[in-house]
Amino acid sequence: MSEAPHLTFDLDKPGISNGHLVVPKGVDCEALSLPVFSLNKGEGPRLLITGGCHGDELEGPIVARRLVEWLPEAQACGRVVIAPVLNPPAVMACSRNTPTDGLNLNRVFPGRSDGSVTERIADAVSHILLPCADIVFDLHSFGLAWDFPPSSTTHPIADPVLMAKTLQMAEAFQLPMTLVWEHPGSPGMFDTLAQKQGKTFVCAEFGGGTVSFDAIAIYEAGLRNALIALGLVEGKPEHPTFRHRKSTQTLETRRSSDELKSPARGIFEPRCSVLDEVKLGDIIGAVYPMDSLTAAAIYIRAPQTSIVYAIRSGTYVDVEEGVALVARPLNH
Amino acid sequence: MSEAPHLTFDLDKPGISNGHLVVPKGVDCEALSLPVFSLNKGEGPRLLITGGCHGDELEGPIVARRLVEWLPEAQACGRVVIAPVLNPPAVMACSRNTPTDGLNLNRVFPGRSDGSVTERIADAVSHILLPCADIVFDLHSFGLAWDFPPSSTTHPIADPVLMAKTLQMAEAFQLPMTLVWEHPGSPGMFDTLAQKQGKTFVCAEFGGGTVSFDAIAIYEAGLRNALIALGLVEGKPEHPTFRHRKSTQTLETRRSSDELKSPARGIFEPRCSVLDEVKLGDIIGAVYPMDSLTAAAIYIRAPQTSIVYAIRSGTYVDVEEGVALVARPLNH
Repeated sequence: MSEAPHLTFDLDKPGISNGHLVVPKGVDCEALSLPVFSLNKGEGPRLLITGGCHGDELEGPIVARRLVEWLPEAQACGRVVIAPVLNPPAVMACSRNTPTDGLNLNRVFPGRSDGSVTERIADAVSHILLPCADIVFDLHSFGLAWDFPPSSTTHPIADPVLMAKTLQMAEAFQLPMTLVWEHPGSPGMFDTLAQKQGKTFVCAEFGGGTVSFDAIAIYEAGLRNALIALGLVEGKPEHPTFRHRKSTQTLETRRSSDELKSPARGIFEPRCSVLDEVKLGDIIGAVYPMDSLTAAAIYIRAPQTSIVYAIRSGTYVDVEEGVALVARPLNH
Repeated sequence: MSEAPHLTFDLDKPGISNGHLVVPKGVDCEALSLPVFSLNKGEGPRLLITGGCHGDELEGPIVARRLVEWLPEAQACGRVVIAPVLNPPAVMACSRNTPTDGLNLNRVFPGRSDGSVTERIADAVSHILLPCADIVFDLHSFGLAWDFPPSSTTHPIADPVLMAKTLQMAEAFQLPMTLVWEHPGSPGMFDTLAQKQGKTFVCAEFGGGTVSFDAIAIYEAGLRNALIALGLVEGKPEHPTFRHRKSTQTLETRRSSDELKSPARGIFEPRCSVLDEVKLGDIIGAVYPMDSLTAAAIYIRAPQTSIVYAIRSGTYVDVEEGVALVARPLNH
């Protein structure tokens, strides 16, 4: 029989601890050791920060790794547990899903102790890391192929008290966008599991495109703002500057009607930038059929007054492939 | 016996022509029809513009396709032939190389009429498109995984007269960077073939990362500047604004010593931006080993005073994987 998932150190020990979350071996691979950092300063919020759930979203692991460097100087109270890379095989393959079993870690929670490697990671995180926190920040991004503003996000939550608390926490990042997106109804998401246990869970979607020096500075500022709001770190929150703007807005979006798809195969050209406001009929992008230069461009138009919050990089797209996502200001 | 590669229209016809370059079928696939546009206004420069040599560099096809729209209003003389997508199978696969035979189109020139599909494309381009021009602009980019400034580039050319002419043409784009990079010695490149025939060949490397609305505007401005310099289009050239700067500089780089590689496996964090000047020992990036959070970050440092012209997106990197490229001002 295989060993149970466990931490190699005691989370209740005061001060800094470093060790690993051991994910037991299975038939598909050996045991994994996920590095975990903990800084316990006694009374106060109990926060878990996770990154690297998807292997092609490296903003989270980098910002989490930087946090491990500066948190010891900054943390005033409470306990912060940091696991920068939840899915090492996916990160090493630069792949969204785990290569071994093809699974998306954020669709298999709470996992299975006797499952494939992705399910075993989810099981270890659910049973060992999640119980140690009342608040979770899970650091994601939109990957290389989309432009996306630095954001904190949540889904609609049935419990109005937890919804308000979660939204307030998300807005505390003070990133350019706070987004409430309609739950796509996918089972097995990390946030759903945490929310069922009454925890405050914010998913940071730290931008899209190239992970650059400038971008990392924005993400780090957002995370610092959230730590200040929790009282874990002292200081003054600051709106990070994103493409000349120091602003933040809270938007809501529905996955079904707010996803704009290409009606044809061809080369997609973005015709606007993220956070641009568009009116009904405005051109958001163009698709050029590839077989003839006399074939007219097909325009993707705004379905209503809205804000473009994600736009695909110029690339070849297939019929019904998503090219833009729009949202509207949230009334709250 | 297969048909020979050919154009479906007469390039010498005055005015606008649209048609295809037919790449004959072979044992590996059917014939390909590459869309070609020509605008013949008589006497003047004979220019060929090509894009989509690599299927994951879509800046070129988009700017070329836009040019097809506005050139008829703008062109004053000469002949411009535009082939926005040289390698349709690679573009449709969003892949640098052609999926069918795994070949890099820019390494198989002048191609082979009896070869695999990539070699047959090169053969058709070499024998049908290349002879129609004295000047060639081949539109490339650095792809999604690197940050790279909008640039025009060339390699050192043995003939000093052609070298000067080519450099002058490259600088006429007035993009943020004109780059002379030491030829990596790879056989089969399109520019080498054209230069052997005495032609002026400029390779545009239209940036890296996400192909955004703002980025496309810069590339289009650069191409327009070059057309104005040739007298093909009337107007005043303008320095495009790239990340707050309206400037241009000419740099030179050696592929061997100016490519900085990661000494270890881990997560790469860029610590500077493209076009930043660095001095000997300055930190350009950090690599975080993934197996422990107590393992110190490994710093990638500048080997001498230089300008960072390409930096890898934050991602997992292997030992000896390239993470940054540096250059120095060209004395000319």
